[in-house]
Amino acid sequence: MRIAVLGTGSVGRTLASAFARLGHEVTVGTRDVAGTLARTGPDGMGNEPYSAWAQANPEVRLAAFADVAADADLVVNATSGDASLAALRAVGEDGLAGRVVLDVANPLDFSRGFPPTLSVQGTDSLAEQLQRAFPQARVVKALNTMTASVMADPRGLADGQHTVFVCGDDAAAKKTVTGLLAQLGHRDVLDLGDLSTARGAEMLLPLWLRLYAALGTSEFNFKIVR
Amino acid sequence: MRIAVLGTGSVGRTLASAFARLGHEVTVGTRDVAGTLARTGPDGMGNEPYSAWAQANPEVRLAAFADVAADADLVVNATSGDASLAALRAVGEDGLAGRVVLDVANPLDFSRGFPPTLSVQGTDSLAEQLQRAFPQARVVKALNTMTASVMADPRGLADGQHTVFVCGDDAAAKKTVTGLLAQLGHRDVLDLGDLSTARGAEMLLPLWLRLYAALGTSEFNFKIVR
Repeated sequence: MRIAVLGTGSVGRTLASAFARLGHEVTVGTRDVAGTLARTGPDGMGNEPYSAWAQANPEVRLAAFADVAADADLVVNATSGDASLAALRAVGEDGLAGRVVLDVANPLDFSRGFPPTLSVQGTDSLAEQLQRAFPQARVVKALNTMTASVMADPRGLADGQHTVFVCGDDAAAKKTVTGLLAQLGHRDVLDLGDLSTARGAEMLLPLWLRLYAALGTSEFNFKIVR
Repeated sequence: MRIAVLGTGSVGRTLASAFARLGHEVTVGTRDVAGTLARTGPDGMGNEPYSAWAQANPEVRLAAFADVAADADLVVNATSGDASLAALRAVGEDGLAGRVVLDVANPLDFSRGFPPTLSVQGTDSLAEQLQRAFPQARVVKALNTMTASVMADPRGLADGQHTVFVCGDDAAAKKTVTGLLAQLGHRDVLDLGDLSTARGAEMLLPLWLRLYAALGTSEFNFKIVR
């Protein structure tokens, strides 16, 4: 597949290199290509400069949001929750029309410090906000309930004996995403139902953040035992 | 231990009989003893009348909220979330002072239909509301993330290979609860930290409710794979 990954942070990078390893044609999208490549210090999360990462991952292309979706089979939203709507707007309505959009972002609000709260919860979700803003996109929520390394290499944790949730209104789009998740090594893909079920998946984050603190590691995941 | 279980619904009944089976002295608390015993039809959730259940569980006593805590070592809040504060008020500040209160309730709001939303979320939780209302109680949140039968008989599901969370400010109270959970058969008791971590445990409910719908059963639980 041709996969466009929006976001140059650790989630975007980790997924992009995993998709490339699987043989997919991957382009990372960014707001400002020149600016992304010009940075020489670590980013706000302590990641190495994108240019250094790009050198180690030469098969992954970099392009502006506006140029990234035109020929993509799948668009992955790996931007931060508060930047997601702007990123998708920069990709553009035409670029997203008919496209499968795998939304892995979380609506985290760090304005009150750590742990962050959710900027949307209860009767709405980030995934639904994106779907409403781009009604012709085929939004699927998945992977937002685990750390990037577990998203991309689930077998690296307990041989993949844990669960990934899939939420969306479009059955064919969910099938495309489910196939990609299986390629990554996910063993237990659990279809929660329509896109409103993303509320539940996103509201897992407050517990995830507390587990991260209690366990002292992000290398864990939820398994639905049944 | 002497255990007071507040609430005559399926959660209260299931826990009460499990505690009694373990040899604890159990009293179920209710708002109106005569009214509880007088009902002859199933309750709103389809449970058999309390009197029929009581006949099958003669070792479990029934008492008014006000009379239930005086000699209890542990008070279990198994009322519905919207009734919890009133139930604890009926138990009384003196009855709760110094007492370990195991809060298994969820702040579910059914006023908009199914699935219910949460009446408190984000920067507060039901457990914290109860703790603030009764500062001398020693509130511990646990068990609210699974169905009653899994709370009481965890080994009945995948031989207990799943997780129960414990949240609270009082280390000794958490130890008491953890011991009781181990007696019930819980293998993986995960201490999330102080009582504010109950926000995460309660915000799991929207996902729990969607899983219940997707799986067609309440016989499941979360396991934290790490």
